[in-house]
Amino acid sequence: MSIHGKNFLMVPGPTNVPDRVLRAMHRNSEDHRSPDFPALAKTVLENIKWVFGTTKGRSFIFPASGTGAWEAALTNTLNKGDKVISVRFGQFSHLWIDMMQRLGLEVTILDVDWGEGIPIDILSSYIAQDTRHEYQAVCVVHNETTTGVTTDIAAVRNILDRYHHPALLMVDGVSSIASIPFKMDEWKVDLAITGSQKGLMLPAGLGMVCASEKALERSKKNNLHRVFFSFEDMIVNNDVGYFPYTPSIPLLYGLKESLAMLMEEGLESVYVRHRRLAHGVRRAVEAWGLKTCCKNPKEYSDTVTAVVVPEGFDAQQVIRIAYEKYNLSLGAGLMKVRGRVFRIGHLGDLNELMVLATLAGTEMAMLEVGIPIKLGSGVAAASEYYMKTSKQVRGLFNNV
Amino acid sequence: MSIHGKNFLMVPGPTNVPDRVLRAMHRNSEDHRSPDFPALAKTVLENIKWVFGTTKGRSFIFPASGTGAWEAALTNTLNKGDKVISVRFGQFSHLWIDMMQRLGLEVTILDVDWGEGIPIDILSSYIAQDTRHEYQAVCVVHNETTTGVTTDIAAVRNILDRYHHPALLMVDGVSSIASIPFKMDEWKVDLAITGSQKGLMLPAGLGMVCASEKALERSKKNNLHRVFFSFEDMIVNNDVGYFPYTPSIPLLYGLKESLAMLMEEGLESVYVRHRRLAHGVRRAVEAWGLKTCCKNPKEYSDTVTAVVVPEGFDAQQVIRIAYEKYNLSLGAGLMKVRGRVFRIGHLGDLNELMVLATLAGTEMAMLEVGIPIKLGSGVAAASEYYMKTSKQVRGLFNNV
Amino acid sequence: MSIHGKNFLMVPGPTNVPDRVLRAMHRNSEDHRSPDFPALAKTVLENIKWVFGTTKGRSFIFPASGTGAWEAALTNTLNKGDKVISVRFGQFSHLWIDMMQRLGLEVTILDVDWGEGIPIDILSSYIAQDTRHEYQAVCVVHNETTTGVTTDIAAVRNILDRYHHPALLMVDGVSSIASIPFKMDEWKVDLAITGSQKGLMLPAGLGMVCASEKALERSKKNNLHRVFFSFEDMIVNNDVGYFPYTPSIPLLYGLKESLAMLMEEGLESVYVRHRRLAHGVRRAVEAWGLKTCCKNPKEYSDTVTAVVVPEGFDAQQVIRIAYEKYNLSLGAGLMKVRGRVFRIGHLGDLNELMVLATLAGTEMAMLEVGIPIKLGSGVAAASEYYMKTSKQVRGLFNNV
Amino acid sequence: MSIHGKNFLMVPGPTNVPDRVLRAMHRNSEDHRSPDFPALAKTVLENIKWVFGTTKGRSFIFPASGTGAWEAALTNTLNKGDKVISVRFGQFSHLWIDMMQRLGLEVTILDVDWGEGIPIDILSSYIAQDTRHEYQAVCVVHNETTTGVTTDIAAVRNILDRYHHPALLMVDGVSSIASIPFKMDEWKVDLAITGSQKGLMLPAGLGMVCASEKALERSKKNNLHRVFFSFEDMIVNNDVGYFPYTPSIPLLYGLKESLAMLMEEGLESVYVRHRRLAHGVRRAVEAWGLKTCCKNPKEYSDTVTAVVVPEGFDAQQVIRIAYEKYNLSLGAGLMKVRGRVFRIGHLGDLNELMVLATLAGTEMAMLEVGIPIKLGSGVAAASEYYMKTSKQVRGLFNNV
Repeated sequence: MSIHGKNFLMVPGPTNVPDRVLRAMHRNSEDHRSPDFPALAKTVLENIKWVFGTTKGRSFIFPASGTGAWEAALTNTLNKGDKVISVRFGQFSHLWIDMMQRLGLEVTILDVDWGEGIPIDILSSYIAQDTRHEYQAVCVVHNETTTGVTTDIAAVRNILDRYHHPALLMVDGVSSIASIPFKMDEWKVDLAITGSQKGLMLPAGLGMVCASEKALERSKKNNLHRVFFSFEDMIVNNDVGYFPYTPSIPLLYGLKESLAMLMEEGLESVYVRHRRLAHGVRRAVEAWGLKTCCKNPKEYSDTVTAVVVPEGFDAQQVIRIAYEKYNLSLGAGLMKVRGRVFRIGHLGDLNELMVLATLAGTEMAMLEVGIPIKLGSGVAAASEYYMKTSKQVRGLFNNV
Repeated sequence: MSIHGKNFLMVPGPTNVPDRVLRAMHRNSEDHRSPDFPALAKTVLENIKWVFGTTKGRSFIFPASGTGAWEAALTNTLNKGDKVISVRFGQFSHLWIDMMQRLGLEVTILDVDWGEGIPIDILSSYIAQDTRHEYQAVCVVHNETTTGVTTDIAAVRNILDRYHHPALLMVDGVSSIASIPFKMDEWKVDLAITGSQKGLMLPAGLGMVCASEKALERSKKNNLHRVFFSFEDMIVNNDVGYFPYTPSIPLLYGLKESLAMLMEEGLESVYVRHRRLAHGVRRAVEAWGLKTCCKNPKEYSDTVTAVVVPEGFDAQQVIRIAYEKYNLSLGAGLMKVRGRVFRIGHLGDLNELMVLATLAGTEMAMLEVGIPIKLGSGVAAASEYYMKTSKQVRGLFNNV
Repeated sequence: MSIHGKNFLMVPGPTNVPDRVLRAMHRNSEDHRSPDFPALAKTVLENIKWVFGTTKGRSFIFPASGTGAWEAALTNTLNKGDKVISVRFGQFSHLWIDMMQRLGLEVTILDVDWGEGIPIDILSSYIAQDTRHEYQAVCVVHNETTTGVTTDIAAVRNILDRYHHPALLMVDGVSSIASIPFKMDEWKVDLAITGSQKGLMLPAGLGMVCASEKALERSKKNNLHRVFFSFEDMIVNNDVGYFPYTPSIPLLYGLKESLAMLMEEGLESVYVRHRRLAHGVRRAVEAWGLKTCCKNPKEYSDTVTAVVVPEGFDAQQVIRIAYEKYNLSLGAGLMKVRGRVFRIGHLGDLNELMVLATLAGTEMAMLEVGIPIKLGSGVAAASEYYMKTSKQVRGLFNNV
Repeated sequence: MSIHGKNFLMVPGPTNVPDRVLRAMHRNSEDHRSPDFPALAKTVLENIKWVFGTTKGRSFIFPASGTGAWEAALTNTLNKGDKVISVRFGQFSHLWIDMMQRLGLEVTILDVDWGEGIPIDILSSYIAQDTRHEYQAVCVVHNETTTGVTTDIAAVRNILDRYHHPALLMVDGVSSIASIPFKMDEWKVDLAITGSQKGLMLPAGLGMVCASEKALERSKKNNLHRVFFSFEDMIVNNDVGYFPYTPSIPLLYGLKESLAMLMEEGLESVYVRHRRLAHGVRRAVEAWGLKTCCKNPKEYSDTVTAVVVPEGFDAQQVIRIAYEKYNLSLGAGLMKVRGRVFRIGHLGDLNELMVLATLAGTEMAMLEVGIPIKLGSGVAAASEYYMKTSKQVRGLFNNV
């Protein structure tokens, strides 16, 4: 019966595309070599820098995914055999490390239990010991979408600064940028990476990288192969307002619109809104008597919550029932935590009632699987929090 | 903050337009006199008859609203000064009666308390006494959207049959057709009326009438003025697949698609779905300790529930907070019940989570106004019911 | 084969809907009683007055067609049995007259050959002779879409002024408003009528009327029946930003956008553009050695050209071939001129190449029917004119 | 003034996106890990094989551009330092060769004058002399979009067969596949490459490759780096109906729809249509007294015609005027032929009138630049050809 009405898309990406953005993308192709095209290209290339928190960096938009953006960051700045250091605390950090290895880099991997954040002390000791500066890069995931654990990037920066280590700081901000605070310039991130299908509220199809001057310097002499993902080809073309090959024009118009929406709201408000919605979800988990996968409250992600099902239950069943009975799309547990967690994505174009509907659907699905929670308890806990922190707004329509 | 995410449109019309229908309507205009046009016109004219429950009737589609369809039904079949009888039990029956009077008809009005259904016995006695058959028409609203009260049309038919009364039976099915059972042929309805913006899941802009053979016969000699709403002009043009003036082409394509959706689901399933969603809402109202405006459970509407707020509270405040804080659109109390009720529309393209989100939003709004309900209680009551009656489905995407 | 690529919609309405307007209309329904709705309603009600050339008049937007707007103008201001005078010079003036008669008015009809404009002298003598002021209204079509003949409304106004005649001046501006100059206040038009599907570049579905203060005064006491088309109901609701019944919300958003486009371009530029495109078409007709249906060059319509096919040929065949072979929609000859003319609509969202493609398609279709024209001659004649009068512009994309 | 009406997008890609495809892409994101997703993935992966002319090959769809598909073909099958042979006869063959070199391959480049096709005899002699089979691949562009020259791939295949040479045959079919005959299995192509924005009538954003069994075999042991473009990762995921990273869902839905359109038409009809439209353009060029860049009529491209402007004129001026005055987008001359040619793309969703409008616009633009052509001559020549070869069709609307 759930085939009727809206699908509740609550996976941690791709996120819901606002109607305004869908409308902006509904257009015929146009000549990407026309004299009018640069106005579009330059607008989006400039405006995404604001989302990354950089004025000094250079932005790149590849017609690819976040995976492509990872590859662009690595291949444009490193050399075959380079040593890099990274932390593995979920599937996405795992996959990025796997890419590094397949590209011929030598990776020092710090493994932690999934649900824990990056071990600042251990990382620090590795950096401290690397007095010959063999590590060419420190690669960290800002928000591990697998577990709902967020990394303190400023703390990582501090380690490098403390030891005057010249390694590039590469940060995967795929599920954080445009949703929780990201401050590329302040944190001196050298390569910040994101995709279009999360906080930017677009379909997948754009992989974005911002590079610091130091990263750009390295890209002039490094030797990993790349053509499609070449910074240099992009720079030559972007400088005059074009792309080296045919860009995905609807996505660029969509990006222009989603950036306009973020600007209208203001990044600080965007962050507050994500935090508030996330708090509600965590209140619900507490009310259900369950645990989040993320162990340390300081590392709670404001974009995704991985909920641990009690011993003896299969989280995959919860997800299947939520989808097949209630048209609710929850995120699966990945790899090590498969079957043990389900994930609620709470990022992008969301509001209170979308979250509350999700909690209601999750309650029914859990109960059907036999997980002993009280119907309405999570919704009530979240509602109470939202009610206490609500504000009145106006002008929902007509502006746009 | 509610400016983000989806608006929850839960007024009893206009209802949510499915994405599939929105897509079908997104097209340039086309020549409405082309040799290809009749295929579209004939398809929708034929298929809406199925929704009305008629094979014998003739369908009319006016580029107007339900109000226009009322006017078409009256002006095509009655004469100036004709006596008609009607029941006033909410704003829509009131407005239709007002129209009858302004068109020069003499209306016997049976008034009942708003919240009650039509008084079958009283109506019966009027018909019984009208042995000279002065009443040319009995005009009833099938589902009074103001109060959430449904009429037993078969019972009305029985009265006319019992007394062999030849009056036309005119039924406003605006908020019932395509949502709850409507059987034009079985009930021998002479003029059945609906609009596009309710169970048909379209924007407003089409007023539809199905007329029985008897009604068509009357239309050949009656004398009320009409041109725009003329059955005759429509018949001449529809017979060859065209319209007497430029139709609203996007709405016709949208109607074709919404009818296809209803056919895929099957009308019986559509009715079951509406009933099930409505039951959940009524469980919630009960759990809150509140009353519905509709007094008789046999007359509960499966498309709209009017909830009575306790003495001393203003339902308008509930509506305002729901909208301004939670992006939830509830229906206002109209005329006599203004401020005393708010209305939840549960018709059209809806599912369980959309209803549960609505209940959650309503709870917060009521509590903020001071109405003493327990947060989560309504959601839990409805959830429990939905859970027990749920089924698994598949194939939400890709088919269309 | 023509099934591929764009349909060239060159009938004189409905016209091409700009992509920008289609996008603006692609949205879910919303509560038409919400506190945000009046902003939309008031914007469109105010801005269409600008298109009609009035600051003093009052605007009405009915969810209907131009035919409905005709009915609204008549029924709101006249009394049963009133005498009115009108000119019949094509199908649309004919149909309006037919409506007047069916509504119970007594119409003095001035008939002229189709292809001629309104006979100012004859009309003048009728008015002069009506010293008892029996004519309550003079009803004229500004641009007779059947023949491509335009009326000098200022001249009609002058007749009434000269004889101090108080008749209402009603003008059908369906195929003129927003395309060729229309000056309601300057011409003291009392009821100006249009539809959405012509110069306003929307689908059909909105019938619009602007009424002078004098017309509004009359509407307070006249006695023709109307409810759906009631000015009074509209005024009461419009004054607070709402409509008396559910409006077609997508069309209102589309209207807001099309008005924005007209404002960006400026009405004077809109008129110049229509005139220039029309000139090109007329050059082509001349180059083909054919005649336009409109006999007097001073009355040439800048929105539609009816081309007369030579004796012995059937214009319907030209239209059929153009459509079935070249995906080109031309307008048919109507009633008296059926088979004798085909019509090229050149109004709305058009440019030079759309017109030239039309001329090329028309040439092939005419030649196939056997009409002896020279391939390329019409295109060359129009091209030459466009080339000489062209200007450079920029910024086709990205702005919107 | 040209800001009004449709843009005539006549560059050789991106091509016009049919309204039907635009509609299919207008949808919210969905969970790309849902149980319903594989139905979509498998459909498009299977159906594109039909367009490539293969039943034996394996298809890959990367969220990238044609450039990415080039990179996928090379990096998945070759080793660092491998020798390959290629022909440079325009910008696209040039850029692909450049990529090969940057990826560390050793390329034997056969250069010919731009406007000539690939030198079969010379290529043959190189292959004949390579008795030690050092060439690992022969890489050719099927349709050089720069010059409008098409390659006889069967002839290239014959060379390899004649000398029993095991080199992989890689073919860039970006501007040919789905427009002119491409027979992967028959020609034993090992890696066939295309993008979404040409014959497939989509926006850019998908790079597609079909690989033969031989190519897949090589991919298991070759050593060029790739992760984003890895065949292996794709295979593992595609086999169960998913993708290794988030795909661009709207483009997949669009691809499903454009493939449905091609299937409805039939590939043979698609080829005939392209050939017929191309013939008309060539007739026009002849009528203008100009030359095409492609010298050998046997090599004329049916998807793009590069028109050489006479000595002393600047083709860039023609393009600029066409765009800025007439909203017509023509393709620029690239690299060696910049300023000497302009290009008319005639591929994708096109019909006769779109081409004729283009020719009319081109005539005006050329004349304004001073190129002495006769207005209407090209349009007349093309019209004559289209007229003689036209067929009647029906049912343009309503089907979809």
